Amino acid sequence: MLTAWRARLGILIPSVNKTMEPEFYQMAPRGVSIHTARMTQKIDTIEELLKMADYAPKAASDLSDAAVDCIAYGCTSGSLLGGPGHNEKLLASIKKVTDIPTITTSMAVVAALKELEIKNVCVATPYHDDINVKEKEFFEFHGFKVLNIQGLSCDGPETADLSMKRVYTHSKGAFRLGSDALFMSCTDMPSLEIIQALELDLGKPVVSSNTATMWMMLKKVGIGEPIEGFGKLLTKPRINGKL
Amino acid sequence: MLTAWRARLGILIPSVNKTMEPEFYQMAPRGVSIHTARMTQKIDTIEELLKMADYAPKAASDLSDAAVDCIAYGCTSGSLLGGPGHNEKLLASIKKVTDIPTITTSMAVVAALKELEIKNVCVATPYHDDINVKEKEFFEFHGFKVLNIQGLSCDGPETADLSMKRVYTHSKGAFRLGSDALFMSCTDMPSLEIIQALELDLGKPVVSSNTATMWMMLKKVGIGEPIEGFGKLLTKPRINGKL
Amino acid sequence: MLTAWRARLGILIPSVNKTMEPEFYQMAPRGVSIHTARMTQKIDTIEELLKMADYAPKAASDLSDAAVDCIAYGCTSGSLLGGPGHNEKLLASIKKVTDIPTITTSMAVVAALKELEIKNVCVATPYHDDINVKEKEFFEFHGFKVLNIQGLSCDGPETADLSMKRVYTHSKGAFRLGSDALFMSCTDMPSLEIIQALELDLGKPVVSSNTATMWMMLKKVGIGEPIEGFGKLLTKPRINGKL
Amino acid sequence: MLTAWRARLGILIPSVNKTMEPEFYQMAPRGVSIHTARMTQKIDTIEELLKMADYAPKAASDLSDAAVDCIAYGCTSGSLLGGPGHNEKLLASIKKVTDIPTITTSMAVVAALKELEIKNVCVATPYHDDINVKEKEFFEFHGFKVLNIQGLSCDGPETADLSMKRVYTHSKGAFRLGSDALFMSCTDMPSLEIIQALELDLGKPVVSSNTATMWMMLKKVGIGEPIEGFGKLLTKPRINGKL
Amino acid sequence: MLTAWRARLGILIPSVNKTMEPEFYQMAPRGVSIHTARMTQKIDTIEELLKMADYAPKAASDLSDAAVDCIAYGCTSGSLLGGPGHNEKLLASIKKVTDIPTITTSMAVVAALKELEIKNVCVATPYHDDINVKEKEFFEFHGFKVLNIQGLSCDGPETADLSMKRVYTHSKGAFRLGSDALFMSCTDMPSLEIIQALELDLGKPVVSSNTATMWMMLKKVGIGEPIEGFGKLLTKPRINGKL
Amino acid sequence: MLTAWRARLGILIPSVNKTMEPEFYQMAPRGVSIHTARMTQKIDTIEELLKMADYAPKAASDLSDAAVDCIAYGCTSGSLLGGPGHNEKLLASIKKVTDIPTITTSMAVVAALKELEIKNVCVATPYHDDINVKEKEFFEFHGFKVLNIQGLSCDGPETADLSMKRVYTHSKGAFRLGSDALFMSCTDMPSLEIIQALELDLGKPVVSSNTATMWMMLKKVGIGEPIEGFGKLLTKPRINGKL
Amino acid sequence: MLTAWRARLGILIPSVNKTMEPEFYQMAPRGVSIHTARMTQKIDTIEELLKMADYAPKAASDLSDAAVDCIAYGCTSGSLLGGPGHNEKLLASIKKVTDIPTITTSMAVVAALKELEIKNVCVATPYHDDINVKEKEFFEFHGFKVLNIQGLSCDGPETADLSMKRVYTHSKGAFRLGSDALFMSCTDMPSLEIIQALELDLGKPVVSSNTATMWMMLKKVGIGEPIEGFGKLLTKPRINGKL
Amino acid sequence: MLTAWRARLGILIPSVNKTMEPEFYQMAPRGVSIHTARMTQKIDTIEELLKMADYAPKAASDLSDAAVDCIAYGCTSGSLLGGPGHNEKLLASIKKVTDIPTITTSMAVVAALKELEIKNVCVATPYHDDINVKEKEFFEFHGFKVLNIQGLSCDGPETADLSMKRVYTHSKGAFRLGSDALFMSCTDMPSLEIIQALELDLGKPVVSSNTATMWMMLKKVGIGEPIEGFGKLLTKPRINGKL
Repeated sequence: MLTAWRARLGILIPSVNKTMEPEFYQMAPRGVSIHTARMTQKIDTIEELLKMADYAPKAASDLSDAAVDCIAYGCTSGSLLGGPGHNEKLLASIKKVTDIPTITTSMAVVAALKELEIKNVCVATPYHDDINVKEKEFFEFHGFKVLNIQGLSCDGPETADLSMKRVYTHSKGAFRLGSDALFMSCTDMPSLEIIQALELDLGKPVVSSNTATMWMMLKKVGIGEPIEGFGKLLTKPRINGKL
Repeated sequence: MLTAWRARLGILIPSVNKTMEPEFYQMAPRGVSIHTARMTQKIDTIEELLKMADYAPKAASDLSDAAVDCIAYGCTSGSLLGGPGHNEKLLASIKKVTDIPTITTSMAVVAALKELEIKNVCVATPYHDDINVKEKEFFEFHGFKVLNIQGLSCDGPETADLSMKRVYTHSKGAFRLGSDALFMSCTDMPSLEIIQALELDLGKPVVSSNTATMWMMLKKVGIGEPIEGFGKLLTKPRINGKL
Repeated sequence: MLTAWRARLGILIPSVNKTMEPEFYQMAPRGVSIHTARMTQKIDTIEELLKMADYAPKAASDLSDAAVDCIAYGCTSGSLLGGPGHNEKLLASIKKVTDIPTITTSMAVVAALKELEIKNVCVATPYHDDINVKEKEFFEFHGFKVLNIQGLSCDGPETADLSMKRVYTHSKGAFRLGSDALFMSCTDMPSLEIIQALELDLGKPVVSSNTATMWMMLKKVGIGEPIEGFGKLLTKPRINGKL
Repeated sequence: MLTAWRARLGILIPSVNKTMEPEFYQMAPRGVSIHTARMTQKIDTIEELLKMADYAPKAASDLSDAAVDCIAYGCTSGSLLGGPGHNEKLLASIKKVTDIPTITTSMAVVAALKELEIKNVCVATPYHDDINVKEKEFFEFHGFKVLNIQGLSCDGPETADLSMKRVYTHSKGAFRLGSDALFMSCTDMPSLEIIQALELDLGKPVVSSNTATMWMMLKKVGIGEPIEGFGKLLTKPRINGKL
Repeated sequence: MLTAWRARLGILIPSVNKTMEPEFYQMAPRGVSIHTARMTQKIDTIEELLKMADYAPKAASDLSDAAVDCIAYGCTSGSLLGGPGHNEKLLASIKKVTDIPTITTSMAVVAALKELEIKNVCVATPYHDDINVKEKEFFEFHGFKVLNIQGLSCDGPETADLSMKRVYTHSKGAFRLGSDALFMSCTDMPSLEIIQALELDLGKPVVSSNTATMWMMLKKVGIGEPIEGFGKLLTKPRINGKL
Repeated sequence: MLTAWRARLGILIPSVNKTMEPEFYQMAPRGVSIHTARMTQKIDTIEELLKMADYAPKAASDLSDAAVDCIAYGCTSGSLLGGPGHNEKLLASIKKVTDIPTITTSMAVVAALKELEIKNVCVATPYHDDINVKEKEFFEFHGFKVLNIQGLSCDGPETADLSMKRVYTHSKGAFRLGSDALFMSCTDMPSLEIIQALELDLGKPVVSSNTATMWMMLKKVGIGEPIEGFGKLLTKPRINGKL
Repeated sequence: MLTAWRARLGILIPSVNKTMEPEFYQMAPRGVSIHTARMTQKIDTIEELLKMADYAPKAASDLSDAAVDCIAYGCTSGSLLGGPGHNEKLLASIKKVTDIPTITTSMAVVAALKELEIKNVCVATPYHDDINVKEKEFFEFHGFKVLNIQGLSCDGPETADLSMKRVYTHSKGAFRLGSDALFMSCTDMPSLEIIQALELDLGKPVVSSNTATMWMMLKKVGIGEPIEGFGKLLTKPRINGKL
Repeated sequence: MLTAWRARLGILIPSVNKTMEPEFYQMAPRGVSIHTARMTQKIDTIEELLKMADYAPKAASDLSDAAVDCIAYGCTSGSLLGGPGHNEKLLASIKKVTDIPTITTSMAVVAALKELEIKNVCVATPYHDDINVKEKEFFEFHGFKVLNIQGLSCDGPETADLSMKRVYTHSKGAFRLGSDALFMSCTDMPSLEIIQALELDLGKPVVSSNTATMWMMLKKVGIGEPIEGFGKLLTKPRINGKL
């Protein structure tokens, strides 16, 4: 690929994140490139995750220099911990430095689950329980029933080094009968490699923070081409009346 | 790829840069991931390119949070415009925030050309002439004879959108008989797609800012596996006595 | 392929055209060869495009020496600028030198859009506005509603060098909600590489001057084999009651 | 391929020719397109082949509108029948209308055989014997020893429809022990599909009018990439001191 | 394949036939081998085609030594020229030397056309008209309407050397609107390579003597696996109540 | 493949043989077809193998009707059991009915072993010992030292059904240190699938009756293209001074 | 595969068995490994097959050390010969040493046939008739009608060396019209390679001891991904309400 | 694969081992199957590793029922901890129950390193230091210089779940300049996936317990075919004078 002729996607990611960039490059369709700016966040405490937002405007401004067509605030917990209105606040702070369309991961997850018409969901996370509690509230606020949410009590830096077996077993273990889908939370938890297998094994859609974010960005920039291999969400038509 | 089991490479790039990330992902061997931090730089003036260095320490610190195994200051002109000692100054400023091994693109180009035993070189750039003059001095300072250096007078933002035909024709046109190699300068000038073809057509090694930077990073982290398809440099054994 | 055992297709093209030949070879099914004769036309003015018709009979006669099974007057604007009756005049002048079945690009576009049951269409062109006006009238004369037509004000020689990004962005930008299809006008505007992606991204059929011309020629010579990869039109069955 | 980023090659061909275009597209490396202009010639008589030259300047002018990087007068007998000086005369007439570098097929064949260091050659043609006699003289004039030359007495229009078996058997039958190579004469005799097999079966290089012409054009425009699958000639490095 | 673990098919062919063996090997599914015995027939006269039957019992006996699971009398005209009862007579003569299930090509063609529910058929043959007349009567006797039958007046030995273009053009030319299928008659007329293309171009099933014979033999020996690439007939399920 | 444009090979085989035809089709290079005529032989007794020769002239005459370019008497023991002069007698009897170049399998084996410069050979056969004794004498007569010859005491009809494991184990078991090659005797013993593996495992060339016969036929008809996958013999250049 | 991230399957097999391990590795989906423990059984007598059960607890205990997720008693006859209650007894004896979910082959076969809604079945076995009688009773006890059961009277050690042809012919020969499926009994009878072909040829599902066992183990451990190439059973969704 | 026509390999493995079986199946060449018997060993203490030998004779006897061609005692530490003579004792105890050729992993490692002409070696293990000390002595006893040996202090059961990143980093970290090779000890440490990459990155041969054991078994049973993809050792010719 010489030039991204179709779209450039910009992601704002926590500095500790090691997974979102390679997973985004793996999903990217022909003619799409991915560009990153980092926001300082070293450890997964609620405090630090909230503080990270301060770095967003400068990082978004840097991405706007790269002429990206869409920006994502690429952090699940970091965009929902603040409770109702958190996403809106993040978007407003970025809006001040650039007019490029912007989304957040937690917004994307809500939209993705609605696209798949999910009502009951199970959630597998790498987090400590204090964050899981907040995430459960977030989903309930948006009208989902959370049948189970379960974490691995990671501190953050080790999340990206979780083995395939660990992530697969943990995620499968978090699923409950009666759930319409499994959500694998955290843009830093490696999951892309196993989403398809997990979806086939559970017989229900599996969505991750990264597939949801990619899906919503592609929808925003009008790229409708189905992407195969990473779960049902990305294979769905992405065209709507709002282009 | 679930986890980068072999190495994580961190690149510090000008905020305007749209090419280094996709080209690095295209070259990356199995088990290697690429991570980015941006330094603000909006236009290719000597002044702004020099000022960009102020953002390096913070950006390097962010990359260190991602536990990268090596960091590159990913800008050719930006690491040579300051004249002799410029590279050393950049490295020193980064050394203050992290001990992760660090290189710069211009260092990597010098090392790569020496690896290929080049003495006479031609250089194709997207720059205005004031930068070309500095680059010529840089190569001469390092003992190379520059048979020709030629620019496209781009201001910066449009560099990444140059067409394949434009880059191919410009680069080939900058080559002179008697030259041992062609160097395609600028981590933002799209060139990876055509390097192999150009090398076959000129009958001499072709090195770009991005292939040189990738090559030196892999050498630093001890990844010796040859990479095919992007010119002779990356196919050479990368093992040396210093591991 | 040793011999074109299925059909030989002859195209009359403006001398300035650099795109129709490679795109036709890319689309050609097994056993089909493409043969060209040029008609002098150096620049995209209405005057010169009309004058080009004088070269058609001699060029068609040359193609008949190559025993082609069908001839196309391969120019969109050049076959519609003269208003109602233009196509008929062109065909009559060629009929005088050879009985080989002949079509024109603008005829083919009308037939292709009807095949796809299009009523409302958007049009992306490389032309100046004077030509766009004529093209809009042509479509309206044939019963289509033109929701939008938009040009790039190219003079002609540079059309074939437009980058993928430029053509993709321009064409997508010309599309309007409510349109049943997008038509990419001009046999010299490079579009074949991106038609499929554009069609998937817009969720509506995309037809180009070259896909329409190829489709109608194949229909004429009775080649029904679907061609994949270049938009919906060429994948449709091409058999009808008239063989 | 959206745009020919590497080179555009222009071929002037007899109107009756049905083989040179598909064989050239089959050989064309990545980034190279082929463009055609026809010169009227309906039957293979010496008279008509010589008269065809009158159409060359207009046809070359048409090709120059397509901004080709090199032009070939694509006819073997038509560029040698006039005896010593014929090629030079053709080039001079074209030089008057365009400065684009131009070659002829018979020049290319001589250069190709010299490149392969051939001294003794056998020649298979589709021609009547009067043309074969001229061709033998042409090779002898250029210092080759012709061990055998043998034709199929085709009148012209049927040449392109010769079956693979017929061309293979005829060409193999024209070979004699002691010959350094086989030359398959005529840009209209289909041979590309079998050259490789024939070369392996004879154990000596096989050159055709079309492989020689392609080889010399690529050399002229500085495309050195080896082409596999069509005989030894095209796999040789094409770089020389004159670029 | 070390051993034909699924079935061995034996074909009795005219000594002049050069096409049935390679076409049968091309169609053979995994685990099936083809074995041949020849019956003397040098030229396509009605007399010689009828006389050939004298060689059948000895040839069938030879095939029975190879433990084939089914035998086919592999000649279309040779199994129908004798008029009603000809097939029965052939089978009876073979039955005397072996109990291996035996069919003839003309029986197979009738069964194949019925399987495809054909009522009106066009027939392309390589024969002289005297044979075509007999073949028409044969089809009519079996209840088909023959819209057109057309031959190439071959004497026999040259049939196998007909070019792809010749067979394609002739066969397509023999088709008439309103026909449900095209039948390409003669086990020696090369057609396997183009059947699929022809079927797609006509939009109707195309059956050849060889595809029909292979289809019926596979059915006899209970091999139901669909075979792709040689027309609709061979892709149909071959299981019936009689195993 | 529509027509055998390169060569047609004719094989005379014992009626009981079930292996030579599929193995020959597996080895055949592009453009080569195989045609068979059977000679009655039901069981592997010396008497019947010798009597089979009576059927050769009629069978060879049938093959000549198929215009084959070369004929092979495809039986190892059947062409050597008669002692010195046996091959010559067979060829003479065939010469009476056709001038087509003819070889025998045992001639081919001798030539193949000489081509590979074998002096000491081990031989694996499916035969009873009376035939093995004759075969040993045959090799000794032609100047080879036979380190070991070993049979499976098959009666004939079951030879073609030997399992891969049985043939591999038997053949490997017949090999002795100091041997330059292994010869797997009998055109009916399935061996093509395992020759390459056996050759790699023994570290010495392995030749079978079928690879030797194919090799010599290709040499006779001037097909030099190396064939990969069936042992060293067929990969060697087949060009010599006698074309 | 570095680690079995999805599941580890443990099989208890008769010591004489040579087929279950390679067939299980051939079927295993991505991320699944197979582990074996042997139970002494040297010959296929009813007595020895029953005695083998004594070795099961120790072998199961060894497999539990390998942390397998499921255990199968991999022997068909060995898990049914004891009559009603045999399976339950086996499971109980294993339950004493480990809580890992355990199944037996005969249980799996019953479940698999029910999954496919089979009522009438034919059975091909390698056994002597005394075992066939027991197997028939077993199926009837479980409510199936056995239209035919047929053995090869193998003693045991030679079962794994049966040739493809032998197993295919025997199995096909055991099938009767009116049967809903064919069951190929015995985990040691090589059948995986031919199941797909046999299923296509019979037009009915074919289940083997090994495909049934694999299918039930995957279901137990919650792996729903369809496996292609080994018959209909393994391509069916494996998700149920009991996970 | 229906039947292992080339060889059956039998491995005796510790009951806790989860890696040797899948890695052996990944390496196995065409026609080779792997068969396992387990010896009880639950944890990596010297005591338990030594006690495991008691289970070897019964396990070897079980493998002999499967007619394997070679047996390996598949445990590195378990075959060397006993000091000089340990291997001999193990072989003797197995010799009592079967004559099948038997090797041990530690014997294989010594032979493999000698085959590669290694003098200085570094060793990466998953063991506690008490075992590392014994392993160092073992190598020194056999004449190697151990530049470094380094363990991961695993207790045993978790060894097979080590991540690719962990094994790669640990093994690379154990390497020292001046070493001729790296040995990755333990048949249960997953390494096959990364051996090739590690070898390319270190520029020296990398041997694992499993590649060494496979290599020696293939040598024993006379399988010389090179195996690509798992390090230099398995690509070397395996033929010697002792067959």
